[in-house]
Amino acid sequence: MADSTTPGDAPQKPTLHHLSDSQSQRILWLLEELAIPYTLINYKRDEQKRSPPELKTIHPLGRSPIFVTAHGRIITESMTIATYLLETYDIPKKFAHSDWIRDMTLTSFSGTSLLDLADTELLFDLAAKHTPWPLSYITRYIKKKYDSFFSTAEFEKNMEFLAKELGDQEWFNGKEPGRADFMLSWPMDFVGQRGYVDLKDFPTLHAWRMRITERPAWKSALEKGNGYDLTSW
Amino acid sequence: MADSTTPGDAPQKPTLHHLSDSQSQRILWLLEELAIPYTLINYKRDEQKRSPPELKTIHPLGRSPIFVTAHGRIITESMTIATYLLETYDIPKKFAHSDWIRDMTLTSFSGTSLLDLADTELLFDLAAKHTPWPLSYITRYIKKKYDSFFSTAEFEKNMEFLAKELGDQEWFNGKEPGRADFMLSWPMDFVGQRGYVDLKDFPTLHAWRMRITERPAWKSALEKGNGYDLTSW
Repeated sequence: MADSTTPGDAPQKPTLHHLSDSQSQRILWLLEELAIPYTLINYKRDEQKRSPPELKTIHPLGRSPIFVTAHGRIITESMTIATYLLETYDIPKKFAHSDWIRDMTLTSFSGTSLLDLADTELLFDLAAKHTPWPLSYITRYIKKKYDSFFSTAEFEKNMEFLAKELGDQEWFNGKEPGRADFMLSWPMDFVGQRGYVDLKDFPTLHAWRMRITERPAWKSALEKGNGYDLTSW
Repeated sequence: MADSTTPGDAPQKPTLHHLSDSQSQRILWLLEELAIPYTLINYKRDEQKRSPPELKTIHPLGRSPIFVTAHGRIITESMTIATYLLETYDIPKKFAHSDWIRDMTLTSFSGTSLLDLADTELLFDLAAKHTPWPLSYITRYIKKKYDSFFSTAEFEKNMEFLAKELGDQEWFNGKEPGRADFMLSWPMDFVGQRGYVDLKDFPTLHAWRMRITERPAWKSALEKGNGYDLTSW
């Protein structure tokens, strides 16, 4: 699973194009955990909290994270970047998993079911925020209906699933964090920071999240990045 | 990457718990492509188009697809199931990819960016449908705003990205379909059937989608399943 560009290229430091208040935070965290040299280029969300147009000059989708390997290959999608980083730089296999089916299931889950649900909640929040009164009253009414009909129960089911998967382990990956932990950090921060789920109702998941924030690599990632406030949309 | 349950278990036929009008269709298609013996259990969406409660007895998340391996291990998440099937049963490597970074990027993309965008559109459709007049007028107004502010341009960017990735190949995977093709079939059918994107504006993507429907395995998957109508929500 090595980088497949011309092997003769002189390797440079890899580069992370990082966006504030975004899922790129989990990649920055992983880079800090791996303790490798890399170049960090920080971008700020615009006033409407969208990606700035400069990111489109790196990759046409214009989203962050964008990772450029030491050989110059551009990689998008957090899952691919995280996998590439672990395959390439976790030489001592500190973050390796012992069960690929479980690891991929949790990794995929972090980007599909859970994030999808959180994004929908965000959309309702935005609709309520950007709709003038009295229409905002109606959007809030629709959100309440949606929550009671669907999303509250779905969030609970998702959290129960994750709590069961975590069990009494420190990390989803076992004794050390792994791809599933790095990947799950984003949707869990998203639902936690925005209050879509009160993680204190799920003490083991809350403890897992706190465990992340205590890691030196997480702290240095926060220092090197340019903000991770998911409440200000 | 073999199934990690006790090797001494006598292998049975694997089972797919399949839901009508759902992403499980891509797994059914893959099973037919692999031409292996398997048990298919069909479930129908309820009147509100949701998963029936029976699925919760198989896995607490109650979503389809749910795959039970020949050794009795339960796997959820389409990406994990597709990967397991290819790793386990594609012995001649007919559907193998030559570049794991590209394959994972497209596979992840099918479940994150593209599907997330499509789900949001669906949500607006549902809000408009289930909101009584004159509130439905307002939800449609909000949807229009959202489309013009965000989603129309996002869909276009996504389609341009995919068209570029497909290039002049028959399949994203090259000469034969691969994991990325199986996985992309669902969001592309979703946006195509519901008219979120007019795929005729992207002739190579349209031709790719038509190419799928012409495959004998796709046709037999449709026959064995219990409906694949994504327009009736």
